[in-house]
Amino acid sequence: MPEYRVLAFDIFGTTVDWRTGVADQVAAIAARQGISLDAEAFADDWRGRYLPSMRSVNDGEREWAYLDTLHRESLDEMLTERGLDLAEDVRRELVRTWHRLPAWEDSVAGLARLRERYVVAALSNGGFALLTNLIKAAGLPFDCVLSAELARKYKPAPEPYLTAAALLDVRPEEVLMVACHHWDLDGARAAGLGTAFVERPLEKGPHGADRPDPARADLTARDFPGLADLLRHS
Amino acid sequence: MPEYRVLAFDIFGTTVDWRTGVADQVAAIAARQGISLDAEAFADDWRGRYLPSMRSVNDGEREWAYLDTLHRESLDEMLTERGLDLAEDVRRELVRTWHRLPAWEDSVAGLARLRERYVVAALSNGGFALLTNLIKAAGLPFDCVLSAELARKYKPAPEPYLTAAALLDVRPEEVLMVACHHWDLDGARAAGLGTAFVERPLEKGPHGADRPDPARADLTARDFPGLADLLRHS
Repeated sequence: MPEYRVLAFDIFGTTVDWRTGVADQVAAIAARQGISLDAEAFADDWRGRYLPSMRSVNDGEREWAYLDTLHRESLDEMLTERGLDLAEDVRRELVRTWHRLPAWEDSVAGLARLRERYVVAALSNGGFALLTNLIKAAGLPFDCVLSAELARKYKPAPEPYLTAAALLDVRPEEVLMVACHHWDLDGARAAGLGTAFVERPLEKGPHGADRPDPARADLTARDFPGLADLLRHS
Repeated sequence: MPEYRVLAFDIFGTTVDWRTGVADQVAAIAARQGISLDAEAFADDWRGRYLPSMRSVNDGEREWAYLDTLHRESLDEMLTERGLDLAEDVRRELVRTWHRLPAWEDSVAGLARLRERYVVAALSNGGFALLTNLIKAAGLPFDCVLSAELARKYKPAPEPYLTAAALLDVRPEEVLMVACHHWDLDGARAAGLGTAFVERPLEKGPHGADRPDPARADLTARDFPGLADLLRHS
């Protein structure tokens, strides 16, 4: 096993439970607005538009746009499709639900263990401000925040992974990317990073999360403490 | 008093004791190499070359260069002036003394208090990797690491201050720059940030640190807990 020095963690799905977090906040806002909607289906639909919206940035079809901007565009589409006309401030509040999401039960303790031996960094497509606020609110013990924003390209393009390694002054192969999505690990591997798949079976509720596939990851763990065990015995 | 949302902390001198940290490590390396030198004077000389070396980058006389690179160039000059010929690996080890410096006694507890109410960020001319390693080793509870490296200009140019505000998605006047150097606060004020002077009378040993000057700072505090007191009563 290579000598990893930095563990870079995906955030949405891997470290925090975006589905429960967004759905709970959407349900509360909808109730306050007197709107009837299925908040979990709403969260799923919103998340489903995430990869396509980023792809248009990475393909050069449009200039760099923050995740908040992409989330807002998707939200506006979704509201139009549902015939819902919400005020500007409510739309902004909805976009900000992605800034405050609950950590998975093992995330804080797992990161704290891993941090004893490695530099642990957040490496997400969320903007730097979004990530800083989310990590602070959830009490996640990261050593530093990194973001696709610093590279102005989204994962799985190579730039965010390589920018992370460059900023931390390590070689790409000294970084282990930790994620519950194969598309993220595929991007990391293509950029020369190590890859660790962590299973998050509840990420998408009943809709089926990515399953472990040892052929597509250097390491496979059940959760963050499981990853710490694997690395300790390496 | 404006509504500050982010407190941005200078690191060298303000949060950590560079002089003791560098001098102690230099003394240990010199002893091991069988070299006789005044380690504190060496640290002072090194630090004295810091502002002029950064100025050449900010003035556009040269391309962006990391603080590590500037420290290395200054070191090579100093060794030549002293007629000392040290091996490459020893020179590298000397440059890395700036990556591991002790926090002032009040820094950790003061930051922990301030963090309850504000986003606390490191904003230093040190490189992102240097800062991440230094903050981790000293156990400083920052919410995020920012660096002049992200703007490719050094403080007191406006870019590092404005990049910090932009990355954290706040207006410049919502950021309070905390430093023990007037030159840093002057730069922050010119960029539209609020300013807090914290006294670090021992920063330069017997050579005289900057003295409080209420005309040049919005707030003046004795140390980080003193700053927390001032802000609590605001």
